[in-house]
Formats: sequence, C-alpha cells, structure tokens
Amino acid sequence: MIVLGIDPGTAALGWGLVDRTGGSLRLIDAGCLETSPSLGLPDRLLAIHRFLADLISRHEPDMVAVERLFFSRNAQTAFAVGQARGVVLLAAAEAGRTIREATPNEVKLAVTGSGSADKEQVGRMVAICLGLKDPPRPDDAADALAVAIWAANSERSDGPVATGSAVMDRAAVAPMARGESSYDRAVREALARDRKAGARS
Amino acid sequence: MIVLGIDPGTAALGWGLVDRTGGSLRLIDAGCLETSPSLGLPDRLLAIHRFLADLISRHEPDMVAVERLFFSRNAQTAFAVGQARGVVLLAAAEAGRTIREATPNEVKLAVTGSGSADKEQVGRMVAICLGLKDPPRPDDAADALAVAIWAANSERSDGPVATGSAVMDRAAVAPMARGESSYDRAVREALARDRKAGARS
Repeated sequence: MIVLGIDPGTAALGWGLVDRTGGSLRLIDAGCLETSPSLGLPDRLLAIHRFLADLISRHEPDMVAVERLFFSRNAQTAFAVGQARGVVLLAAAEAGRTIREATPNEVKLAVTGSGSADKEQVGRMVAICLGLKDPPRPDDAADALAVAIWAANSERSDGPVATGSAVMDRAAVAPMARGESSYDRAVREALARDRKAGARS
Repeated sequence: MIVLGIDPGTAALGWGLVDRTGGSLRLIDAGCLETSPSLGLPDRLLAIHRFLADLISRHEPDMVAVERLFFSRNAQTAFAVGQARGVVLLAAAEAGRTIREATPNEVKLAVTGSGSADKEQVGRMVAICLGLKDPPRPDDAADALAVAIWAANSERSDGPVATGSAVMDRAAVAPMARGESSYDRAVREALARDRKAGARS
C-alpha cells in the first residue's frame, strides 16, 4: 500500500510517499514544494494542484493523508493554510483516492507517542520508522512523512478505520497478536531510549 | 464585460453574474450552491469545483471576483472558508480568468458607501444597482453580486487597477467626467434617501 502524506501550505507544501508492505514501511520519495511569493495566490494554488495531480498519477497512492488543523495563532494563517488544503483535498478527490485527515497532535501521538512532540523528535521518529540514517529535510517533508506513516499504520489495525477525523492513539497501532512489526519495534525501542535519556537529564 | 462574483463557503457558496455595458449593470444570474453536510469535505470541494468550472465555461466571465477575508471569529471558520476559497481561485486560474479580490469592507464601501453596512443595506443597494424590484435572495447570492458589482465598477475607473488587494473607495467609483452613469445615479439617490431617513430617525 502506497500512502501520500501532505503537510499543506501555500508557500511551502511538504509531501512524502511511503510504501507499506506487511508491517514494514519504506520511503519512496519526499520533499517540499515551494511556490514563489512573486506569484499571485491563484497561480500558487494552480502550481500546487498541478504538482499534486502529477504526483498522484505517477505514484498512484492508495491513500492521501492530509494534516487537519483546528487552531491557529491568527486567522490569516488559517485562511492561507485552508486555501492550500482545499486544493490538496480536491486533487485527491478528483483522482478518486481514499482520503485520511488527522490533526498534528494525532500524528505526533501515533509517531512519537506524545501529542506535544517537537519537530526534532518527529523527524527522528520518522527516520527510525523508515530506516533512514538522518531525519528527512526540510521539516515540512518530515511532517508530511509523519502524516503518511500515521495513515499507513492506522490502516493496518484490524478494527474498522473511521473516515475523516479518526482519532488514533498508540493503542490502535500497538503490536498485533501475531508479532511485533519492525515499525512497532522501532517505536518501542526509540521510546525506551527517550525515556532513558529523559531519566538521565 | 461579464463579471462572476463569489462569496465563498463550503456549506453555502454565493455566486452572481453581472454584465456591464458602458455605465449600466445588468443581472445575468445568481444563486447559492449548497453542498450537503452528509458529503465529506473532499466531495463538497469537488462539487464546488465542478459547479464553478461549468459556470465559467458556460458564461465565460471576463473576470472572477472573490471575497477576501482577513478576520474571523474562529480559526475553524477561517479554515473552512479558506478551503472553499482555494478551490474557487483554482477554478478561475485554470480557466485563465482575471481574478479580483476584495475584503467585505471594500465591497460594502463601494456598493453602499459604508464599510460597515449590514446585510439588508447591501441587498437593497444590489437591487438598486441592478434595477431589481427586490434584494436578491438568499443573502449569499446578494453578497456575491455585491462583489461582482464592486469588481465591474473598479474596472470602469480610468486609472490602472491594482491586482489582488486593490483598495477601492467611493472616490474610485465616482461619476466619470463625461456624465453620471445609471449606477452612480442610483447610488447617489439611495445614499441621499438613507441620509434623509437617518436625519428623520
């Protein structure tokens, strides 16, 4: 199963493709689409739409997972992110893809075990989950991959997955009865290391 | 010149088409697209995009004018409106149309002479500008027509029109040297009536 994760924004849009085969996750590709501030907003949205339509038709992801935001320091940011998000959801719907939405907190909780993890911790866990030497750069790409990992693992659980605002917690991505996956092991080990590091400091 | 005005929203999207020939404005059509809450957000955005793409290809407006928002009581509303707005701007950009954006205050100022006019006053002035017996219903359609009227009249001024966030004021839509248009006369008379009514109360 291929999942495309998106961290939406008009200036910088993070994207990440992961492939889940059984319990293991693999990075396909990731990056950050930056649109020039010299372009007007409609042209930036056009660029985002074209890029995503192309990405979806090239990789044919089974699922598109998008960060869902509820809070913002200011309405301006909310409008800007909302506009990019609308175009992302449209591109996914036009291609007939399954869409999953999660709040940043849900994603952090599923990937790091803490809803309030910082960017560094998310990047580190994304690297561990995907077997990468270093956290993906830039942060937007790492965030998009975290969303993709969340979605790929939420699909893996045996129970039905609620559409849209499925609240995932660690329990839902806990090891399955038939054995711990490489993802689960990596998370468990990383969390153990974090606890040790925390205890030392 | 045909102008399509849009008052964006995911649940209800107001739209209005006006035709400007010389100094006179004429209503072509207006309405409000409501999308069912039973549809998921991506499907609502898909419906909005299809509706607009169809409307634009049928009427071939020279310009698409969209309300631009800066403030919102809550971030949720800002995200929701932003998402619809992104899809509206995308549809207009895909069709290669000229796009104008104005804040509600700019629109109210240009149509009623007051940036803080209420919905009723806007509806009344839209009816007067377009020679209608009654204000258009629902309010979303009237708001969209107000945006279209703002854009149609901002284009009429002799000076260059700034793209995007052009701040229009009454001065910019003042009577042209070669005589008062029906629009200007209607606005002037309506404002005079409003002033009289205000003086009486």
